[in-house]
Amino acid sequence: MKIGILGSGMVGQTIGAKLVGLGHDVVVGTRSPEKLREWSAQHAGVRIGSLAEAAAHGEIAFNATNGGGSLDALSQAGAANLDGKILVDIANPLDFSRGMPPTLFISNTDSLGEQIQQAFPGVKVVKSLNTLNAYLMVNPGLVGGGDHTIFVSGNDADAKAEVARLFGEWFGWRDIIDLGDITTARGTEALLPVWIRLMMAFGHANFQFKIVR
Amino acid sequence: MKIGILGSGMVGQTIGAKLVGLGHDVVVGTRSPEKLREWSAQHAGVRIGSLAEAAAHGEIAFNATNGGGSLDALSQAGAANLDGKILVDIANPLDFSRGMPPTLFISNTDSLGEQIQQAFPGVKVVKSLNTLNAYLMVNPGLVGGGDHTIFVSGNDADAKAEVARLFGEWFGWRDIIDLGDITTARGTEALLPVWIRLMMAFGHANFQFKIVR
Repeated sequence: MKIGILGSGMVGQTIGAKLVGLGHDVVVGTRSPEKLREWSAQHAGVRIGSLAEAAAHGEIAFNATNGGGSLDALSQAGAANLDGKILVDIANPLDFSRGMPPTLFISNTDSLGEQIQQAFPGVKVVKSLNTLNAYLMVNPGLVGGGDHTIFVSGNDADAKAEVARLFGEWFGWRDIIDLGDITTARGTEALLPVWIRLMMAFGHANFQFKIVR
Repeated sequence: MKIGILGSGMVGQTIGAKLVGLGHDVVVGTRSPEKLREWSAQHAGVRIGSLAEAAAHGEIAFNATNGGGSLDALSQAGAANLDGKILVDIANPLDFSRGMPPTLFISNTDSLGEQIQQAFPGVKVVKSLNTLNAYLMVNPGLVGGGDHTIFVSGNDADAKAEVARLFGEWFGWRDIIDLGDITTARGTEALLPVWIRLMMAFGHANFQFKIVR
């Protein structure tokens, strides 16, 4: 499958490497290709391009940019390159300007997922994977035998079902809860404050939320 | 043990009935004792009193009032009646004024738990049990064999340890995570938006968070 990954931090790199390893045709889009030279040399098959090239390449795209820069990065990627496609939005509206722990620069009555959907009405935004660390995103079996939960939020039911199907096929996810429309991203983005406190309490990020029912 | 429960809604009633059933000496404090006449007749041994009487009675107290009225109710309970005691704060800052789903009237950079601790500096506030429904609070085995997680937040380490010990003894809780000081109540109060969306998606409240690690 042709996949475009917007953002080249740990999340973009981890998902990109995993999907290339599965044989997919991946372009990682970045504003700083020089920073990825060493990494891409170690991951044969990953192509590096501009944000617009990655967006144009993908049949599906991931927003793996920093939350603070997501709207700007998506503008550079270009609405025309994303229109009609699924955009998996992994970004969180974390504000580190006051130090640790970060606060949220959008919260409670709005979410970054909604702002992205509003700014790009032709894109099928599916908020997901924003509630766990990058290694677990692509390998849920790293903790608890993979017996834990991720969420999808979005306005397009078919897009959410397709994302859930792909995450099962690609990464092995078994428990994916459809929370509802994109406004439910307020809920999953609001998991970050407790996630960060858990990381601080444990001293590592190898943990996950499970919804027991 | 002498226990004071402030608030007589579903949470106060459920915890009160459970603790009386365990043989404890419980006073449920309310501003509307007439509303509890039928309920107290069905739960022999529960005494109903004013908020101040319940606070004065308890060696430990529960804040089971509505979040919107908690600071006012605790003022009526009286700082002098609570000073030096543990107050388990179960309230959430839910704002239903815009309809469902509710938003939070305190969030992100502050929490109701912190506001209570600040208003009552002589009280050992331990935020806990605010992330699940009342029936599960006192009977975690109702879902998933009791294999799920609650949290404690507070500034007094001994108070948190005592609450964790009591919750194990009284209710059977096995996984209680100490998140840190009372500012970590921002994290658990922020679980409410996703909790509410999960309740709406499932159509029931018989589910729980588990932190898999």
